[in-house]
Amino acid sequence: MQKDPNCLYCSKNQTQKDLMIEICDLSASTLFLFKEQTYRGRCIVAYKDHVNELFELSAADRNAFMDDVAKVAKAMSLAFSAEKINMGAYSDKLKHLHMHLVPKYVDGPDFGGTFVMNPQKVYLSEAENAELIKRILENL
Amino acid sequence: MQKDPNCLYCSKNQTQKDLMIEICDLSASTLFLFKEQTYRGRCIVAYKDHVNELFELSAADRNAFMDDVAKVAKAMSLAFSAEKINMGAYSDKLKHLHMHLVPKYVDGPDFGGTFVMNPQKVYLSEAENAELIKRILENL
Repeated sequence: MQKDPNCLYCSKNQTQKDLMIEICDLSASTLFLFKEQTYRGRCIVAYKDHVNELFELSAADRNAFMDDVAKVAKAMSLAFSAEKINMGAYSDKLKHLHMHLVPKYVDGPDFGGTFVMNPQKVYLSEAENAELIKRILENL
Repeated sequence: MQKDPNCLYCSKNQTQKDLMIEICDLSASTLFLFKEQTYRGRCIVAYKDHVNELFELSAADRNAFMDDVAKVAKAMSLAFSAEKINMGAYSDKLKHLHMHLVPKYVDGPDFGGTFVMNPQKVYLSEAENAELIKRILENL
């Protein structure tokens, strides 16, 4: 399928590696842990191909993608006992469909509001990231 | 199906009427125009029942809801020639599944970033809201 060499999701370039850690491929997407962890357990589910809008997908492809999104959200909810999993797809300039999945916790950052795209505040050790990934995979 | 009398989407109370204008029912949801129109054409698609998380739905119900979301996003994109339709589901405290659909425009507010939940800045006349609704329905 279509790829764009200038897209960080298609090229898996250093910009992407600075922002996220690849966890695994899913049926229609790839799952990443977002390195900025203000919202403990935050992930991204990126569609397998370079498609801009969700509505450009066929029903079958959209359903496969949203099945991945729902499975990951459920796994995050179980893994981290989050009160709510926020979902957001923005990407005005980076035209590759991906969903931010952001756990929210009662009395945690921005509970009751939207999440900040990249607070640039909380970065964990390799071991701590590995532990988050392990818990997501155990619940996936 | 389940309803919560304290929920603004279930009860269709005055709080809801202050925030949004009901446009029509879709297969698994109801479509609303968001009254705050900083992002020209902004809408909400609310699930028909009082369900908290997308992942709590069966695959069939989830697919029906996301089909509604995709149809509305496509209609908004066509109606308003938006550069991108942002999608966001937060609702940490209001446990009724709904998706914010927010058109973004090059050189428009917050292009390239997330959208603000409720900027409380731009409110249109009844005639202007009716015109937006007409254009969405023509493209739905």
